[in-house]
Amino acid sequence: MDYIFELPFKVRDYECDIQGIVNNSVYQNYLEHTRHEFLEEVGLNFTQMHDDGVDAVVIRIEIDYKFPLRSGDQFLSKLYVAREGKLKYIFYQDIYRVSDNKPIIKAKVIATTINAQSGRPVFAEQLAEVFDRYL
Amino acid sequence: MDYIFELPFKVRDYECDIQGIVNNSVYQNYLEHTRHEFLEEVGLNFTQMHDDGVDAVVIRIEIDYKFPLRSGDQFLSKLYVAREGKLKYIFYQDIYRVSDNKPIIKAKVIATTINAQSGRPVFAEQLAEVFDRYL
Amino acid sequence: MDYIFELPFKVRDYECDIQGIVNNSVYQNYLEHTRHEFLEEVGLNFTQMHDDGVDAVVIRIEIDYKFPLRSGDQFLSKLYVAREGKLKYIFYQDIYRVSDNKPIIKAKVIATTINAQSGRPVFAEQLAEVFDRYL
Amino acid sequence: MDYIFELPFKVRDYECDIQGIVNNSVYQNYLEHTRHEFLEEVGLNFTQMHDDGVDAVVIRIEIDYKFPLRSGDQFLSKLYVAREGKLKYIFYQDIYRVSDNKPIIKAKVIATTINAQSGRPVFAEQLAEVFDRYL
Repeated sequence: MDYIFELPFKVRDYECDIQGIVNNSVYQNYLEHTRHEFLEEVGLNFTQMHDDGVDAVVIRIEIDYKFPLRSGDQFLSKLYVAREGKLKYIFYQDIYRVSDNKPIIKAKVIATTINAQSGRPVFAEQLAEVFDRYL
Repeated sequence: MDYIFELPFKVRDYECDIQGIVNNSVYQNYLEHTRHEFLEEVGLNFTQMHDDGVDAVVIRIEIDYKFPLRSGDQFLSKLYVAREGKLKYIFYQDIYRVSDNKPIIKAKVIATTINAQSGRPVFAEQLAEVFDRYL
Repeated sequence: MDYIFELPFKVRDYECDIQGIVNNSVYQNYLEHTRHEFLEEVGLNFTQMHDDGVDAVVIRIEIDYKFPLRSGDQFLSKLYVAREGKLKYIFYQDIYRVSDNKPIIKAKVIATTINAQSGRPVFAEQLAEVFDRYL
Repeated sequence: MDYIFELPFKVRDYECDIQGIVNNSVYQNYLEHTRHEFLEEVGLNFTQMHDDGVDAVVIRIEIDYKFPLRSGDQFLSKLYVAREGKLKYIFYQDIYRVSDNKPIIKAKVIATTINAQSGRPVFAEQLAEVFDRYL
């Protein structure tokens, strides 16, 4: 896999739950933040898109939890992308622990673009161009 | 689908993000709370299991996001269960908006049981018995 | 203290941290949700106010943490209100564990109203009227 | 004020709420993470202390909200410390926006140390020594 973007993180204690490990839902926060930072780096602003009337929304997520992160762990959140049809944008997102490169989660996130008012699917040329650069 | 458990919720404002809708990661909180309430109802206590040395951990989650919940929406979180092999426990979890029964998300959550110290897979008779009651 | 509103809650496991108790920040979620439910009950809608160009914002919060809530605890979140000057709205918010009425936190939350665009203080007649009903 | 520690952050979109600003409760996450990073830097490990039977717990927090952070804002979370009596540890914690040094919040956090089992106050020599270094 040729990752096209990566972002370093460190687990914060409040992200851990009773089991002493990062709560499953928190990984979606990590993944979302990584996607938004990637989109910002390539010149797309999530908030700006919303103000322009287009929301990028996740329609499906698959996460394999391989090994839990613990308090203080440093990790890299990496991604590469694909497209499916005219309206589906796929993010493959994997997280690795820094200390030993151990795979933590493997995720596939499928997003599409909708009109912020109506909720109807709408083609977002700007986003498609960004993806096509990497395919 | 014959659901075996359901739990009513109401969206709280702090669960909504800039787009004015419930953030994707929050649905995992709803799903987790629903599973724990179900397990408690059938006599299993998540915290107690942990203290007894067994952690039930999610190893894979698939969520289809059908339609977003908004501030103040009331919804029902429903589930039914299945088993796969000796060590996999499957929760099928769907969320419906109360006002019109609209499907919001459909999720499949695969859990297994591990030794809380070693992280090794371990058979949890108590949990298997609960699941077998419904199959 | 004559409370004018109360809301029942139950601690969800994902709200607890490594120490096995509800994380301090989560109480602010409880307090916020309680205020919004109170305002909705008396006919004010937080999201509607925002769409109308007025944001109610918290400018100061004081919380005394008396005793921690744990997984599964049921509690009541209660409040009464006061005003200070033309622009300050004070919520006194206390949380009690249901099983033994034990005080969990005592909080004082000071809010004001601002123009959603400019951020400038603005008098919100609707909100003032609600508060004055209880004074 | 002579700050003794500072930590850089960047607002993540999922930390923002319907108003488009960082939710009030999230600042407590920032403050907690800053304290833990500070304690780790000076050789104290929050999780380790817990495993050793001592929990540092917050007993009171006061936060003045000066100006809201928005999506993508970079900020510095700074702190200095004080002691009060034998058992109270005070963190003064301020957050500034990086772009213009604008004060965002000013907080005073009072912590104490308790026995992790009994919940009784207990003197934590290790923590006291750390604080005394800075007074």
